[in-house]
Amino acid sequence: MTQWIGVQHNGEYRFGKLVKDTVVLCTGSMFDSPEETDETFPFSNAVLDIPCSPTKVVALWNNSRGVAVKQGLEQPDDPLVFIKTSNTYLPSGGVIRKPNNYDGRVIFEAELGIVIGREVYNASQIEAAEAIFGYTCINDVTATQIIGENDNFAQWTRAKNFNTFTPMGPIVSSDVNLADVNIRAELNGRERQNYPLSDLFFGPKRLVHLISSFMTLYPGDIISCGTGLGALPMRSGMQIDVKIDGIGTLSNTFCN
Amino acid sequence: MTQWIGVQHNGEYRFGKLVKDTVVLCTGSMFDSPEETDETFPFSNAVLDIPCSPTKVVALWNNSRGVAVKQGLEQPDDPLVFIKTSNTYLPSGGVIRKPNNYDGRVIFEAELGIVIGREVYNASQIEAAEAIFGYTCINDVTATQIIGENDNFAQWTRAKNFNTFTPMGPIVSSDVNLADVNIRAELNGRERQNYPLSDLFFGPKRLVHLISSFMTLYPGDIISCGTGLGALPMRSGMQIDVKIDGIGTLSNTFCN
Repeated sequence: MTQWIGVQHNGEYRFGKLVKDTVVLCTGSMFDSPEETDETFPFSNAVLDIPCSPTKVVALWNNSRGVAVKQGLEQPDDPLVFIKTSNTYLPSGGVIRKPNNYDGRVIFEAELGIVIGREVYNASQIEAAEAIFGYTCINDVTATQIIGENDNFAQWTRAKNFNTFTPMGPIVSSDVNLADVNIRAELNGRERQNYPLSDLFFGPKRLVHLISSFMTLYPGDIISCGTGLGALPMRSGMQIDVKIDGIGTLSNTFCN
Repeated sequence: MTQWIGVQHNGEYRFGKLVKDTVVLCTGSMFDSPEETDETFPFSNAVLDIPCSPTKVVALWNNSRGVAVKQGLEQPDDPLVFIKTSNTYLPSGGVIRKPNNYDGRVIFEAELGIVIGREVYNASQIEAAEAIFGYTCINDVTATQIIGENDNFAQWTRAKNFNTFTPMGPIVSSDVNLADVNIRAELNGRERQNYPLSDLFFGPKRLVHLISSFMTLYPGDIISCGTGLGALPMRSGMQIDVKIDGIGTLSNTFCN
């Protein structure tokens, strides 16, 4: 397993490997023959940034067996997707901001993020597996009451795309074994979500296979796999951590 | 008025000004003190590319008075938006491709595209006007029968984001007077859409003002203003032209 992070270092964006508690900065591309440098520093000194720069985050609705049972939804025939745009990206440690002119609920959603490592279109299942570079933690923040405001048009795009609404990272783990992994969320240290990967209708390889059948995925793009039971509103000042074993902890605060 | 285009030139992406029938290549950024070079060639020799590189295209639903009357829709309180991602971008001259495994209707939608010139968030009406760099032609291609396939989730993202589904350009016109402009579509040379800017519920400045209230817009981002009456399916081999006076003609073919 290799753990990758993005940082601010001497005023510029850099990426590197996390080796025990030390960051080893790299040059080149994370996805194409990155080279280690002799620039190192302790992880505790890192100024975290997002771990990669997706052209898009493709996120999922109704991809959890647990949520579907609770809400009386059927398993969809295909992944049901919406987009999270680059203005929403937020590093670990950053502040999730309540939208202007909105007093409704803002919920966290702990999710597994698939990080794409090579350009793929119409990928077979084997090509899909090869296109997965690694995995990261995603918080798919949502202003839930906006979705249904208009009777004729469900506003997924607006509800999901306020600035700061996609915390991600801090670590991308490559060559990680996800077989027994659970995705967890803690609100002020209290566990609120804890669901296994097997809760997902469409797992990572099938998602890459099926989504690449209609849109090209580029290196650094992320598919956020959808959340399980237990997503809840946040109140101002609360800390929300997304934790996935073998990947890391994404920690943010919510502020009005 | 200045007309800007993007081209492939000696194997790389360049942008330039169109001066009568001559392309004058520039260096730097289109949006920040571009400098003319002495590299020029006839427009007829240009290998067209997209005119800018949006981090996102924010597109509109139900923004036409004519369509709303016909379909019995009320004017929405706020712009109703969805995202078109970078895999959909297509230059003028490119081929719009029918999606794999889809035999339904694929329609053209001629639209005015607002090109953002500076980063804005929460822009006042005045700041919104100042953030508009120029305007371009957009064809918001849509696989309409996908939208309603799932009973619980309208699939705007999938229906709108197949590769090649956002032809744009070839020209961005800055300092253009749009007061009397019509947006037109011609299918195999026969006019199929022709609606004035005044058909839009939300005009360009209000769109930038209102959309920037929830998401940061970056230089090169595009807001596609939604289409008027007359959008129709395309059949394989058809040519579809989007024409806006003072801006130009976006010409593509559709192919199964």
